[in-house]
Amino acid sequence: MQFTAKDIAMLLNGTVEGDALVAVNQLAKIEEAQQGSLSFLANPKYEQFLYTTNASIVIVNNSQQLTAPVNSTLIRVENAYSAFTLLLEKYNTFKLYKEGIEQPSFIHETAKLGENAYVGAFAYIGQDVKLGNNCKVYPNCYIADNVTLGDNVTLFPGVVVYFDCVIGSNVTIHSGAIIGSDGFGFAPNADGSYTKIAQIGNVIIEDDVEIGSNATIDRATMGSTVIRKGAKIDNLVQVAHNAEVGNNTVIAAQSGISGSTKIGARVVVGGQVGFAGHLTIADGSQFGAQTGVNSSIKEADKQWGGTPYLPYKDYLRAHVNIRRLPDLEQRVRELENIIKDLKKDVQ
Amino acid sequence: MQFTAKDIAMLLNGTVEGDALVAVNQLAKIEEAQQGSLSFLANPKYEQFLYTTNASIVIVNNSQQLTAPVNSTLIRVENAYSAFTLLLEKYNTFKLYKEGIEQPSFIHETAKLGENAYVGAFAYIGQDVKLGNNCKVYPNCYIADNVTLGDNVTLFPGVVVYFDCVIGSNVTIHSGAIIGSDGFGFAPNADGSYTKIAQIGNVIIEDDVEIGSNATIDRATMGSTVIRKGAKIDNLVQVAHNAEVGNNTVIAAQSGISGSTKIGARVVVGGQVGFAGHLTIADGSQFGAQTGVNSSIKEADKQWGGTPYLPYKDYLRAHVNIRRLPDLEQRVRELENIIKDLKKDVQ
Amino acid sequence: MQFTAKDIAMLLNGTVEGDALVAVNQLAKIEEAQQGSLSFLANPKYEQFLYTTNASIVIVNNSQQLTAPVNSTLIRVENAYSAFTLLLEKYNTFKLYKEGIEQPSFIHETAKLGENAYVGAFAYIGQDVKLGNNCKVYPNCYIADNVTLGDNVTLFPGVVVYFDCVIGSNVTIHSGAIIGSDGFGFAPNADGSYTKIAQIGNVIIEDDVEIGSNATIDRATMGSTVIRKGAKIDNLVQVAHNAEVGNNTVIAAQSGISGSTKIGARVVVGGQVGFAGHLTIADGSQFGAQTGVNSSIKEADKQWGGTPYLPYKDYLRAHVNIRRLPDLEQRVRELENIIKDLKKDVQ
Repeated sequence: MQFTAKDIAMLLNGTVEGDALVAVNQLAKIEEAQQGSLSFLANPKYEQFLYTTNASIVIVNNSQQLTAPVNSTLIRVENAYSAFTLLLEKYNTFKLYKEGIEQPSFIHETAKLGENAYVGAFAYIGQDVKLGNNCKVYPNCYIADNVTLGDNVTLFPGVVVYFDCVIGSNVTIHSGAIIGSDGFGFAPNADGSYTKIAQIGNVIIEDDVEIGSNATIDRATMGSTVIRKGAKIDNLVQVAHNAEVGNNTVIAAQSGISGSTKIGARVVVGGQVGFAGHLTIADGSQFGAQTGVNSSIKEADKQWGGTPYLPYKDYLRAHVNIRRLPDLEQRVRELENIIKDLKKDVQ
Repeated sequence: MQFTAKDIAMLLNGTVEGDALVAVNQLAKIEEAQQGSLSFLANPKYEQFLYTTNASIVIVNNSQQLTAPVNSTLIRVENAYSAFTLLLEKYNTFKLYKEGIEQPSFIHETAKLGENAYVGAFAYIGQDVKLGNNCKVYPNCYIADNVTLGDNVTLFPGVVVYFDCVIGSNVTIHSGAIIGSDGFGFAPNADGSYTKIAQIGNVIIEDDVEIGSNATIDRATMGSTVIRKGAKIDNLVQVAHNAEVGNNTVIAAQSGISGSTKIGARVVVGGQVGFAGHLTIADGSQFGAQTGVNSSIKEADKQWGGTPYLPYKDYLRAHVNIRRLPDLEQRVRELENIIKDLKKDVQ
Repeated sequence: MQFTAKDIAMLLNGTVEGDALVAVNQLAKIEEAQQGSLSFLANPKYEQFLYTTNASIVIVNNSQQLTAPVNSTLIRVENAYSAFTLLLEKYNTFKLYKEGIEQPSFIHETAKLGENAYVGAFAYIGQDVKLGNNCKVYPNCYIADNVTLGDNVTLFPGVVVYFDCVIGSNVTIHSGAIIGSDGFGFAPNADGSYTKIAQIGNVIIEDDVEIGSNATIDRATMGSTVIRKGAKIDNLVQVAHNAEVGNNTVIAAQSGISGSTKIGARVVVGGQVGFAGHLTIADGSQFGAQTGVNSSIKEADKQWGGTPYLPYKDYLRAHVNIRRLPDLEQRVRELENIIKDLKKDVQ
């Protein structure tokens, strides 16, 4: 897996400055790059590194001027950042390329695999499961009966999808994520014990969704828990039964969404945020890390923080005031003393 | 999997009103139901839906009176809600029915399976493991040496149970939950490093417990971490070594219980709550989401919230006061100004 | 697995007092011990238990004096606590002893196993993987292509290590932990959707690290996410892309470290703590449970608490003041009334 400056310049439609035959086998940041690495310079702030880097090849903008000698081979392109991002993607596609059916795996006779499938060893594909084209089911994944996957779905090792769930196209689910386990629903009995409420709904994950490692998304009691198109969910996030996550909404690690809460579109949720149940959250809302949301939000595109949550600015101001509390208490005590004296004077 | 109104009425000991041969193949809420669905009406608040629903069959109370024409076939029963819950259960039992030993699986020659066992492909059952009757061990589960399971235990795909743990009857553990991993115990050395303290205890899970996806329950250092009868633990909950969760206690997602803390019976814990170590929490305590509990609670049946926790009402009042802090500071400033003037007047 | 007092005394270089042939098969706390158990007494506070315990054998300090008759056989050693810890370790080593390659497992023809390896059934070892000596890869683990493990590494069942990650020696990773999944990196597009930023870096775990169940450690975008020598990470902890955890740093359950944050050495992090991204945290910092850290910390060895975080003492004081807020508000109201009267008097 070696590429010359010439190869890469052809791919990027760029021009080589320096040794066109120098070869690289990895990508690195310009300040950390070793010999054999390819890097890039887009931000003029980092120009200094261009003259000191050990990278064998550096991609630069066509407009980049040189103010000192450069040891690396340069590849000049219109937009160095975009060009490098393209290489990152190609590199990863190459690294992650897998196809074929490894043995032993378990594929039910009624399951339908699409074209170009990868099914890893010890993966389990149940009855009536349908996979679109170019799906990758890594080892130790479990896909229960009657699950449907669209095209270009990747399930990394150890993903579990319970029965009847529906997953769209271009979806990536990282290791250990659990899709469609039972919602947490129990009816209290007179003696203090609980009776389980059967959870017969499912989870629907629309296109272009990514779900992080060890995240949990519970099936609906009835109906569906829904993750809408383009949503991105980080590691260890909990989405409870009948909840909904809107289009292009982003949820950072360890946040939790309680049952039946509907998060709107374009919402940005920091880490360790919690939403109570049965809420509706307006589109474009933004939540600082560790926010606690205990009521619905109707106004779109506002920022929030704190537990219970406040408008973000009020939250910051409240915390400044909390720090000043000992000082405020002291001021009140002084006033009380002055007034005691004043009353004496006046009487 | 089609059932007619006549079939269902017989099962529920109800009477049919309308086409007794109409068939359904799914269950749905009355307001969302499509043709081919069975639904129910129990709460008079939703009576309007009875006249507009697309459900093919609706279960109603014997006492239900009709004030407009109905398109669906009705099944009249004594208690529509109970009847529907019964159907939910039967539906789920049917959907989740599995039996037999799938290949390849790993069952140690000394392991004892009970009657009517399901062992999925790629499941691992270690030395001297004992399973009661009607246990389901889904694919990719791992049951270590010397583990005992009671009757009617379901381990969904990817559950791990470390050695020596004991699980009672009627226990359900969802995918990715880890039972019996090492407690987090390390003794500090003089040079700043740590020496691991071997964790040789186990986890005991009593009857009628349900544990959510990706929850973690650590084994005791010595003795047992115990989850008592009827407790319900949600996804991504952490229970540390030597902790105890009481009878019929309910713990919502992402909460954590530190080492050696004993949670009483009938306790209700919201999401993302944290308990410090070595605490004792009284029976019937209730904790709002994100509460931080840093001391023992002796009084039973109280409600708590906030970090560090306060009586729930005090917590709410404190937060109202926090929001009013800028206002309070302003009032103090005004007093200071008035008093400055007063002092001048008096002097 | 039975040992006599004579056997154990020889192992510990101690002397037997009582029946040297009495046998034990388990270890227990002195106050919980049953017949057939071995226990220890180190702390004089618990001396009373020495006279009432059911333990068959108790290890005591040479200096221990007896003030009443003892039923157990005693083994006298220089340091009873150290001697017992040694036994705990030996016990656990014995319980956890595994070797050999179980079938079916998947070991790529290019993978290199060291001496004395254990590879459990349904474990997957990819292309060009290198294992040191005495490695244990339990069932259902997945080690992706080009991963390197040092000596004495244990991966409990269901651990996933993505491609290119590097793990040192004497590392223990508990079940369900995910090492090297993609960092949460997405570039926003003009239409509100996101484009994934390929994550081509890796995770480096140095020697003597322990990682808890269902923890997630994401690979770097470029370069490495690093867990330094001797760090201990508890269950359900999240470490994001390009973060770094310092030498001998300890992180309790459910805490999260955002992208590119560098945690120093000897840091102690309580449970459910959150760190924002791109921070640098000084060596020896200590954080109470549920702390929210939103800025870098330059001063070493300080204690912090609260959200947003404060010096620990200030945090405690602030919360005392919060509880007193209704009282403070009342004092201000009284001052306002007094002053209203005073002003009348003065005018």
